[in-house]
Amino acid sequence: MQKIEHIGIAVKSLATAGNLYEKLLNTKIYKTEEVISECVLTAFLAAGPNKIELLEATSPDSAIAKFIDKKGEGIHHIAFEVENIEAEMDRLKNEGFVLLNDKPKKGADNKLVCFIHPKGTNGVLIELCMSV
Amino acid sequence: MQKIEHIGIAVKSLATAGNLYEKLLNTKIYKTEEVISECVLTAFLAAGPNKIELLEATSPDSAIAKFIDKKGEGIHHIAFEVENIEAEMDRLKNEGFVLLNDKPKKGADNKLVCFIHPKGTNGVLIELCMSV
Repeated sequence: MQKIEHIGIAVKSLATAGNLYEKLLNTKIYKTEEVISECVLTAFLAAGPNKIELLEATSPDSAIAKFIDKKGEGIHHIAFEVENIEAEMDRLKNEGFVLLNDKPKKGADNKLVCFIHPKGTNGVLIELCMSV
Repeated sequence: MQKIEHIGIAVKSLATAGNLYEKLLNTKIYKTEEVISECVLTAFLAAGPNKIELLEATSPDSAIAKFIDKKGEGIHHIAFEVENIEAEMDRLKNEGFVLLNDKPKKGADNKLVCFIHPKGTNGVLIELCMSV
């Protein structure tokens, strides 16, 4: 893994949390984006080589809405940048990790992404992501 | 904030989780350390400029043991590297964030650290850390 690309944080209101994280990180949101397939609005803030991705659900069926219902607001996932996502998916499958999608799918911020089942990673939802 | 210095993950067994995260990140644990004041054993793995810190409680009174009792294993905190921790603590106090310690305290990995109350950060426990 090349670095922590971003940490995804599930929030109820992007407006409120965005304002708060701008103060916390002492930087402005540099990008917002709706990912229609995932029913989320996202906002990105930079912390050096890394990013914080705030996630607000746009539908009660969104994974983010369900996460907040169950656990409250908080860290939803860690995304690691990889150079070759298909090779890394193969390597992890061979190591026994359970992937949540068979093929890379389109995520926010011009990335191809794949999620790993948190039951096999001590409760942590891990995303692999590769710039396209 | 200069970067995400590390993500702390609360685990029941450092031996089991260490083996698993070595496979996941395709790298070896490069350092283990006991932080007696916090009643934790820690293990560090690198991901480019960032680290994963696995945390196992050494006492049922440890914050990590209490976290796992309440929420299960998973992400415990995000640590951001700062250049001047006292200046950053002052800035955040002035912005209305609640700090969990008044003065920087000694953490793992030769750092001075300060935690921010998660009630003011959408449920995310944030650590500031500075190399000493």
